Amino acid sequence: MSKIRVGVIGGTGYTGVELLRLLAGHPNAEVAFISSRSEAGRPVEEIFPNLRGHFDICFSPPSVEAFSKCDLVFSATPNGIAMTHARALMERGVRLIDLAADFRLKDQAVWEQWYGMEHVCPELLEEAVYGLPELNREFIADAQIVANPGCYPTATTLGFLPLIKSGLVTVDTLIADTKSGVTGAGRGASVANLYSEVADSFKAYAVGGHRHLPEIMANLNSVSNKQVGLTFVPHLTPMLRGIHATLYADLIDKSINIEELHSSYLTSYENEPFVDIMPLGSHPDTGSVKGSNMCRIAIHRAPNSYKIVVLSVIDNLTKGAAGQALQNMNIMFGLPEDTALQGVAMMP
Amino acid sequence: MSKIRVGVIGGTGYTGVELLRLLAGHPNAEVAFISSRSEAGRPVEEIFPNLRGHFDICFSPPSVEAFSKCDLVFSATPNGIAMTHARALMERGVRLIDLAADFRLKDQAVWEQWYGMEHVCPELLEEAVYGLPELNREFIADAQIVANPGCYPTATTLGFLPLIKSGLVTVDTLIADTKSGVTGAGRGASVANLYSEVADSFKAYAVGGHRHLPEIMANLNSVSNKQVGLTFVPHLTPMLRGIHATLYADLIDKSINIEELHSSYLTSYENEPFVDIMPLGSHPDTGSVKGSNMCRIAIHRAPNSYKIVVLSVIDNLTKGAAGQALQNMNIMFGLPEDTALQGVAMMP
Amino acid sequence: MSKIRVGVIGGTGYTGVELLRLLAGHPNAEVAFISSRSEAGRPVEEIFPNLRGHFDICFSPPSVEAFSKCDLVFSATPNGIAMTHARALMERGVRLIDLAADFRLKDQAVWEQWYGMEHVCPELLEEAVYGLPELNREFIADAQIVANPGCYPTATTLGFLPLIKSGLVTVDTLIADTKSGVTGAGRGASVANLYSEVADSFKAYAVGGHRHLPEIMANLNSVSNKQVGLTFVPHLTPMLRGIHATLYADLIDKSINIEELHSSYLTSYENEPFVDIMPLGSHPDTGSVKGSNMCRIAIHRAPNSYKIVVLSVIDNLTKGAAGQALQNMNIMFGLPEDTALQGVAMMP
Amino acid sequence: MSKIRVGVIGGTGYTGVELLRLLAGHPNAEVAFISSRSEAGRPVEEIFPNLRGHFDICFSPPSVEAFSKCDLVFSATPNGIAMTHARALMERGVRLIDLAADFRLKDQAVWEQWYGMEHVCPELLEEAVYGLPELNREFIADAQIVANPGCYPTATTLGFLPLIKSGLVTVDTLIADTKSGVTGAGRGASVANLYSEVADSFKAYAVGGHRHLPEIMANLNSVSNKQVGLTFVPHLTPMLRGIHATLYADLIDKSINIEELHSSYLTSYENEPFVDIMPLGSHPDTGSVKGSNMCRIAIHRAPNSYKIVVLSVIDNLTKGAAGQALQNMNIMFGLPEDTALQGVAMMP
Repeated sequence: MSKIRVGVIGGTGYTGVELLRLLAGHPNAEVAFISSRSEAGRPVEEIFPNLRGHFDICFSPPSVEAFSKCDLVFSATPNGIAMTHARALMERGVRLIDLAADFRLKDQAVWEQWYGMEHVCPELLEEAVYGLPELNREFIADAQIVANPGCYPTATTLGFLPLIKSGLVTVDTLIADTKSGVTGAGRGASVANLYSEVADSFKAYAVGGHRHLPEIMANLNSVSNKQVGLTFVPHLTPMLRGIHATLYADLIDKSINIEELHSSYLTSYENEPFVDIMPLGSHPDTGSVKGSNMCRIAIHRAPNSYKIVVLSVIDNLTKGAAGQALQNMNIMFGLPEDTALQGVAMMP
Repeated sequence: MSKIRVGVIGGTGYTGVELLRLLAGHPNAEVAFISSRSEAGRPVEEIFPNLRGHFDICFSPPSVEAFSKCDLVFSATPNGIAMTHARALMERGVRLIDLAADFRLKDQAVWEQWYGMEHVCPELLEEAVYGLPELNREFIADAQIVANPGCYPTATTLGFLPLIKSGLVTVDTLIADTKSGVTGAGRGASVANLYSEVADSFKAYAVGGHRHLPEIMANLNSVSNKQVGLTFVPHLTPMLRGIHATLYADLIDKSINIEELHSSYLTSYENEPFVDIMPLGSHPDTGSVKGSNMCRIAIHRAPNSYKIVVLSVIDNLTKGAAGQALQNMNIMFGLPEDTALQGVAMMP
Repeated sequence: MSKIRVGVIGGTGYTGVELLRLLAGHPNAEVAFISSRSEAGRPVEEIFPNLRGHFDICFSPPSVEAFSKCDLVFSATPNGIAMTHARALMERGVRLIDLAADFRLKDQAVWEQWYGMEHVCPELLEEAVYGLPELNREFIADAQIVANPGCYPTATTLGFLPLIKSGLVTVDTLIADTKSGVTGAGRGASVANLYSEVADSFKAYAVGGHRHLPEIMANLNSVSNKQVGLTFVPHLTPMLRGIHATLYADLIDKSINIEELHSSYLTSYENEPFVDIMPLGSHPDTGSVKGSNMCRIAIHRAPNSYKIVVLSVIDNLTKGAAGQALQNMNIMFGLPEDTALQGVAMMP
Repeated sequence: MSKIRVGVIGGTGYTGVELLRLLAGHPNAEVAFISSRSEAGRPVEEIFPNLRGHFDICFSPPSVEAFSKCDLVFSATPNGIAMTHARALMERGVRLIDLAADFRLKDQAVWEQWYGMEHVCPELLEEAVYGLPELNREFIADAQIVANPGCYPTATTLGFLPLIKSGLVTVDTLIADTKSGVTGAGRGASVANLYSEVADSFKAYAVGGHRHLPEIMANLNSVSNKQVGLTFVPHLTPMLRGIHATLYADLIDKSINIEELHSSYLTSYENEPFVDIMPLGSHPDTGSVKGSNMCRIAIHRAPNSYKIVVLSVIDNLTKGAAGQALQNMNIMFGLPEDTALQGVAMMP
């Protein structure tokens, strides 16, 4: 089989470099071009010296001609860019995985409200497949456009899914108290994300509303027979990578058997290569998934209360972005789903 | 007025050095001795070089004779030590502030269950005053034994108090999702707290039960007309100092006016020197209280839900330990409450 | 005595907030205004919430009228700003301490070469006093303009001074291998100083030439009877504050007595409140001076070589910037030199 | 070809887990056993959850029987353990790679002086091959015992080699100012390596003498026609992984052409898969090699001096330990040298 010809739009961010790190180990894909408007002409290795010796290539300006020669384009740009290319790619038979948010919501009005801009190709929203393999594997296989999930939605959805399906909890008082490493904030120059601003400190942000809320709710509603209600509070943690979602749900019946619930989690994910249900009593740390595509989940019954507590960890750049995008590519092209994703997390 | 003669039992831990840092700037107190069984004879400055030039003193072995010459003894030892000295100190008229947990709970059985040892002076549990000034100021003034609160209980209690008093929320479904810096784990040699184990990673711990749970519940029950129910989940954060408590409560009536609730927080703490209610919409970070005795609190209404979210931050070594102990000393000896505690937090 | 009326130009950077943190505890100074062109009208506490309750003041636009009512102005701006105000301040009898580099070098041509701009008041270069108290205390007392030293020059100069005065080493092969925390890079929005770029990594920079080289050489030449030669290599360290200078010099005569050299260091600094010569065999860490104005120095003889190794640590924002500026103010106004600078370093 | 049967002695430390991380991706090796005296019987994944799904194996007690069935044993234990097994392994035809220091020095007396214990098989010191492929590749191929180099010696030797071979510098005044991440200190419980002791701080250590000094000197002497003299100063940096060696040497003749020297570095390493000579003017950061087996080197001429400055970075756990051990295994068993070592460094 000839190699998949891959293009990357917007390769200068952290999801871009993570994608390239993983693609370097992929036996069935070759990177045909990496575009960047701001860095066009500059060798990729100058910005990301870890890629020296792996990608002897320069950033090129984005161009439809270059895209057209690809089988697949990853868009690792800020929100609002992929949608400007999507129609042209479709017309040329090039498949698209958008690592940003342009195609994550089905409802145009909701999307425009949260992202603060007009959607330029709302007709593609319905066609795009939400790329969480654990939810949508069969649709991803044939998708022309895959909307790669957000990092918080990935960790939160995977943690909640079996619980909501179980029918054991009330779905309208869910809480996701989530913590992210700083790479989640991207590589744009900003005072707020300077080392001197965020190191050795911790804070919540966007308690009044975060864009990932409607995305998570859509995911959870897709498996719930009642409308879910979710309180979502993100926090910024002084570490590079990692999402830790601490999830709370109220038991309908206090007499739950935690071993049974644990079994249902094990069963739900028994065929999933990238979801690891930990033994009862575990506390997964984000370090245990650093650089890997794994999501590790533990479930607990809080003492003296009616609450189930789920702990769900991923690497925001891997399972939360580039790794999941590669997983989607593997599914789309009929490859073993874990190709180039078998790497062990780096610990410490 | 002559200076308060102060002794410190167990000065080799992080609460000990923080206490000495603050005492160095106290005009009305002098440190008469610092004991350490393991480091007796060694200059204090060898272990904590930041104290060079401030305390020209060696650790001495703990002795009743030395204690007897003091007006006040701070016990900055592990749990279970202060109670072995308390009776002797009482008999000699020496007042005691215990920074550990020996006198924090009134119920002996509950204490012994959570702390896994027999209490050697249970008759003093009732006499001891729980040293949260915002709750117990008048009793602290005359106390012989002050039980200095835990770090999580301080942040959590201060954050919840006005809300529970307000009667606006159901008190049996409270959640405290709390995050602590690593100094909270103490200075004992352990693999779990090595830099290489905890840096650049984040995890929950003790979801199955933490000693601070009964302490927080007792605090909240003291102002509630109904029995509170609390789910308490602590997390370890890769930073030195700081507690961030994210608190959740369910509104009884959805039609709450958040401005009114904010006002009630302002009113509750208007005379408190060390509680700072932030403007609506704020997200205090732990860095804003680093090294200071301040607790900063913000309140939010979560979008599309019945939840109130309270953010409460302290420095675990200062307001969460040594600073609060000094605040208690000031109250006990009739000094201005903020003596030696006016320092601005160090940022960045 | 009435309080010194102080103005701060450019209070939005890290040296600005550190200056305000220290000034909050100064009994003889009051901050009359804090200017910022970009943040004019905004409360200081919004940018630096640690100052809430200490400075109930807004940033104001810089204005000669406001300056004129001050006794002293600190300029905590980027390089090239203080010199545009200096003449106006002089004419109005307002003294100036510049925390940037505008007046640090006596030689206009050298200054313009390294700083890449024209100097607008070269006639004041000679009049300005280089504000390293350990070198220039008597001149500082009467100065109208004080050029507050750079952070690397402070640590390096204090570490080398007694060694060069001793005549024991060759002065033309000196090496300063220096390591700085990230706050030294300032608070400007930049990709290079993002948390995600510098955390958990270490690098050298500017090996081909750094602006602090001529400043250090001028300092060392001022006490050397031969022209010094210095190789200066700065490094960026993933920590907030701190400079660690590792200094190397070749012994002229191998038969040095390290105890004698240690004694000469002790003697050189015996009256200095902010230089602490550690016992032989010590390795001061930057944490031991965090938030304090102290410089700690240790000297070593390297095994099997002719090298003397000096370790010199400061907090770059305190002794390396704002603390030293306050020390200079105290000298200029006849106050005890350590006023508002007695704080113990925060450890951990 | 059947797979190489590999045993790991002492798999509970950081070099052990890094070895397992890399071995998980090796197509020609299988891990037959992992021993640990203290953790015998415990699943490997309990200590290192990143290995879940990769190694379904428990730690076993060390035993000659188990070793005997292996083709190769890696000893990832503290110093002094491998030498107690070496003779038995030799007799059974099992090859040994010691990641500790037992066989790194040829001179028994020097070894015993620096390591403070008696060597139990000094007769094997001569036979053992020092496993720096760039120096000893042909001998490694046939070695029965490979002494895997120390982390500092790897970075320092690779950085200095072409310079010393060039004859352009005086070899008796070399300086290696080296900085290490905290994983280099190992996984033993100790106060000194607690997060709370080393985070946000920087210090030198062992300036009076470090065990890696004689090892580096032996390496450099092997390519020098004159006896080298080296001043070696290690520092502890608040990061997990990485060595940054800043190397200084005095030019014999000031009129050096830096481009020529750069060319000689390029030529020296042109066939080396794991040494990357950066373009002139570069400053490699340790982040660019995190998790990879690469050593990146840049050379500089310091301004206004006779010094050459070499910057050399590695990951202490990979090229500085486990990666290099795997590289040696590949050489010993005739495999492509980069098998399982092609992974791109993780950045950020």
